[in-house]
Amino acid sequence: MPKLDFDVITMGHGSGGLLTHRLLESGVFNLLKNDQLDQQHDGAILNISGPLAFTTDSYVISPIFFPGGDIGELAVNGSVNDLAMCGAIPKYLSLGFILEEGLPMADFWKILVSIKAASERAGVHVVTGDTKVVEKGKGDGIFINTSGIGELHPSARIHYSRIQPGDKIIVSGFVATHGIAIMSQRKGLEFETTIESDTACLNHLVLRLLDRLGEDVHFMRDPTRGGVATVLNEIAGQRRMGVEIKQRLIPVHPQVEGACEMLGLDPLYVANEGLFIAIVEEGAALTALDILRADELGANAAVIGQVVQAHPGQVVIESPIGGRRVVNYLTGEQLPRIC
Amino acid sequence: MPKLDFDVITMGHGSGGLLTHRLLESGVFNLLKNDQLDQQHDGAILNISGPLAFTTDSYVISPIFFPGGDIGELAVNGSVNDLAMCGAIPKYLSLGFILEEGLPMADFWKILVSIKAASERAGVHVVTGDTKVVEKGKGDGIFINTSGIGELHPSARIHYSRIQPGDKIIVSGFVATHGIAIMSQRKGLEFETTIESDTACLNHLVLRLLDRLGEDVHFMRDPTRGGVATVLNEIAGQRRMGVEIKQRLIPVHPQVEGACEMLGLDPLYVANEGLFIAIVEEGAALTALDILRADELGANAAVIGQVVQAHPGQVVIESPIGGRRVVNYLTGEQLPRIC
Repeated sequence: MPKLDFDVITMGHGSGGLLTHRLLESGVFNLLKNDQLDQQHDGAILNISGPLAFTTDSYVISPIFFPGGDIGELAVNGSVNDLAMCGAIPKYLSLGFILEEGLPMADFWKILVSIKAASERAGVHVVTGDTKVVEKGKGDGIFINTSGIGELHPSARIHYSRIQPGDKIIVSGFVATHGIAIMSQRKGLEFETTIESDTACLNHLVLRLLDRLGEDVHFMRDPTRGGVATVLNEIAGQRRMGVEIKQRLIPVHPQVEGACEMLGLDPLYVANEGLFIAIVEEGAALTALDILRADELGANAAVIGQVVQAHPGQVVIESPIGGRRVVNYLTGEQLPRIC
Repeated sequence: MPKLDFDVITMGHGSGGLLTHRLLESGVFNLLKNDQLDQQHDGAILNISGPLAFTTDSYVISPIFFPGGDIGELAVNGSVNDLAMCGAIPKYLSLGFILEEGLPMADFWKILVSIKAASERAGVHVVTGDTKVVEKGKGDGIFINTSGIGELHPSARIHYSRIQPGDKIIVSGFVATHGIAIMSQRKGLEFETTIESDTACLNHLVLRLLDRLGEDVHFMRDPTRGGVATVLNEIAGQRRMGVEIKQRLIPVHPQVEGACEMLGLDPLYVANEGLFIAIVEEGAALTALDILRADELGANAAVIGQVVQAHPGQVVIESPIGGRRVVNYLTGEQLPRIC
């Protein structure tokens, strides 16, 4: 950590004047160094061609440091993954901080270092940014917005309209891991677990899938807030088709399953961060599984069901003993500020 | 305003589940309707060619409704202007909301309508977005992040390195207007004034300037937080040249001048929102002024000084009676949360 004049973030760090300037000059610009950021203008000029994907997400997770990651890593991975889900190769990120007066400078620096590491792993550059400070009690430590730009993969054709009856539904790994890791840290909920958030950048894995399967990947989505159930409901609703999944096929880590039972939670509604759902052409499902399972991030990938013509708009799950029930949208809020 | 199930924003509206879905379906998607937003994916696919500009800004202004505008309009204009300052034609915006539990739904809707109107005036589309909710007391009504993408103007060559001694420094209108309008509303500071924020989109005006003058526009920047003084210091510092301005040439609205005197403020440090500084080739300055003054937004444009080889890194101002002094960076915080 470079020598900074203050131990905590002050209102002056958001003034746009000398303190903002020093904070950026002394630390941020140097840490995240790249040609575009060095332009130090109101925006970055990028040479990018062809169709691109554009995404945005704000991160308000609490606590900001959690088992397996922190808000900085999450903010990079989250937007990188959103781009990957569009069938794009993530290239550039913007970084918007809303800091609360009094945030320890050491925490801010730790988060910056984490952003740098996550950007390098994902292979993206932070090219433009913004820092605002709000008074103590008007924020919560740190909120981060990352917006991202990616180049569309040449053989990607990801769209709701491409989902067809017979398509297989694949999850890339264990579900509900992130949510349970965060819950284990929440006040009043603390419980013993070694579960860590699954936050990770999925773009390299998705790239391999698209390189190999191209148009046979019909749709992708990462089930963050609202979990797998929400994404499947969106698919069923948007496409006016049915979704059928089998409970026994859904991969859940035993510790996560135990925690869900203890808390009375359905893992299908719990948030994920390093997981995605792929809807693939029936005949390509086994190849997709092979590709996913060859990667550490996809080691527990599984086909969990399929798209059907029956019961359009509805997601139906079959229990291990053969009972069937409808899986609805999450109606309330399971755990606020999970991402 | 459409019929919504709640009078205020609740934590559930940030769940990613049913309430988030209903809020977006019932209002936001319909209001901001366009082809890209209709994709309703994790990001938008854009067909854009050639080099582009990418920018981000978070808006935390207090109060959220102020004379002459609101946080929604500000968030659109601010990012549109940042793109214009890069020499780009603004095309697409992302929209990230961080809402505080309890925000009246009517306020949220008013801000959305304002975002729509400002987007239409600027000629940009909101193509992707995100909504998070934080608990009461962990935010302040509403924070907005807008990131933007623009196509670089074919004859724009805006860069610090293009600034040369002899270049003229032009401001596009009255300075300090936004800051004074906001101050007049702050608790403990209230004073009588009819001054309204100058928030406006500058892209159409900048386009005319670039169409006509092309490469003769060496640099542009909008002096928001930190005011004109901060931008001039950044220019002097980055380019290692001197900046000389004359106080009598700086256009200030009489009411704003009065308020600044009353509050003991130097208008050069007060924030602006619908103003920009252009550094132009000496021989092109009069044409630039003509172009600016032909537009309502540039009616009060003026040449306020020039770039010099002397005193590199320093901004020097000449008083009406001929005295000279250095204009430094703003060292502290003049007025928190001005944008």
